[in-house]
Amino acid sequence: MTHAQQILETHPRGAAIEAGALVACIDACFECTQSCTACADADLGEPDVGTMIRCIRLCLDCADVCSATGQILTRQTEFEPELARSVVQSCALACRICREECERHAQHHEHCRVCAEVCLLCEQACDRVVSILAA
Amino acid sequence: MTHAQQILETHPRGAAIEAGALVACIDACFECTQSCTACADADLGEPDVGTMIRCIRLCLDCADVCSATGQILTRQTEFEPELARSVVQSCALACRICREECERHAQHHEHCRVCAEVCLLCEQACDRVVSILAA
Amino acid sequence: MTHAQQILETHPRGAAIEAGALVACIDACFECTQSCTACADADLGEPDVGTMIRCIRLCLDCADVCSATGQILTRQTEFEPELARSVVQSCALACRICREECERHAQHHEHCRVCAEVCLLCEQACDRVVSILAA
Amino acid sequence: MTHAQQILETHPRGAAIEAGALVACIDACFECTQSCTACADADLGEPDVGTMIRCIRLCLDCADVCSATGQILTRQTEFEPELARSVVQSCALACRICREECERHAQHHEHCRVCAEVCLLCEQACDRVVSILAA
Repeated sequence: MTHAQQILETHPRGAAIEAGALVACIDACFECTQSCTACADADLGEPDVGTMIRCIRLCLDCADVCSATGQILTRQTEFEPELARSVVQSCALACRICREECERHAQHHEHCRVCAEVCLLCEQACDRVVSILAA
Repeated sequence: MTHAQQILETHPRGAAIEAGALVACIDACFECTQSCTACADADLGEPDVGTMIRCIRLCLDCADVCSATGQILTRQTEFEPELARSVVQSCALACRICREECERHAQHHEHCRVCAEVCLLCEQACDRVVSILAA
Repeated sequence: MTHAQQILETHPRGAAIEAGALVACIDACFECTQSCTACADADLGEPDVGTMIRCIRLCLDCADVCSATGQILTRQTEFEPELARSVVQSCALACRICREECERHAQHHEHCRVCAEVCLLCEQACDRVVSILAA
Repeated sequence: MTHAQQILETHPRGAAIEAGALVACIDACFECTQSCTACADADLGEPDVGTMIRCIRLCLDCADVCSATGQILTRQTEFEPELARSVVQSCALACRICREECERHAQHHEHCRVCAEVCLLCEQACDRVVSILAA
């Protein structure tokens, strides 16, 4: 059980939406923040940095969106479904666009391969939360 | 001329969209991050904190979204219009929802009145960028 | 193996300091960002919120410091030891001060007990990185 | 009068330290977050990006530290001087190290010249707050 799940289960008002999907998405957002920051940084250290500019930029954007989304989904008190849905949709989009760019470099940069994998997990976790919030 | 404008004008690739609307939105996002953080904190110091819970929560969310949006709009290299539009739309929504709550407290809490004002400016600046990106 | 470790191991320039301690600290910083955000939010949902104001404030501060520290330690390219040490020291301090407040509430709020535990892990991981950087 | 100042003046518990120095530092931190993000991005768009790697990295770090510091200083409720001092000291250091690197490029990259200027203002504003907190 992750710490995110432990704290969520002890929230005085309970989880605002299905706890399993919520915790998976929160954990994925924080992981993806880290992976995208790490991938942008590894790109900067590559000899072919000039070909990695778009990857760096999208990783930086994705890290920012994932970080904000992870924070917002973490909050259960006075949860606001309309805002949550909009933010999580943006996050899924950021993850998809970043993933597609990382996949283009996955064969020659292992960090891009791992980052694309983490982006995909986050995109899927976001999609699941969006479908719950849209129900 | 703000520093945001100065740096934007010296960007090697130029601004990705109309510079006036862009700089106004970037500056508004950073201002709104600060105002919402300040309003949530002032709420915490109020004797009637129990009635300000929703205001605190929405201010924290709005600060997170505005911060991410300000960062993403600041970046002009390999600008990604689809992602920018989605994020700025979420930001306009966060500002509107937060503003509506702050307005409910504006008569008895001056910090809520100022925060609602800053949220409105950011919402309008975001709407303008969204309309440019949708064109 | 965490994703943080996987990407670190594929960094073109390698890890700037001992990888085990570094990855443990990065992971702890992101976990602590999440836990402190969750604890502040759970505090806001408690009937006795008026007695949790200091806990909320310190959790918000600790989340901000841990997030910045996690980002900075994630970057290995052109690693700057003097800055890293200063930031990680601030992070250890933020974790200690936040943990001490959470411990005061641990008996009646389970989320504070878990948050104190995560803060302690992060404090210890930071202390280890500081000792490596000071060597 | 900035919005930061307006909200600070309406805080139910007042400013924790001298308001002028505090507001100047808060505003400088948010400006420096923006400038450093913009400078890192402009560097990425330069034909000589390979020579700007250290500048990008330090700008990203400086933006993270300034953002966290601006948030923490914004909070007046249950202000914690020991933590504030440590964080603001790290911020002054981040600004100094980033400024020194930007200055090296100021003659051929105007965005580095502007960013160095903003870093200097933030460094000085931080130093003033540190001296107040150390008194």
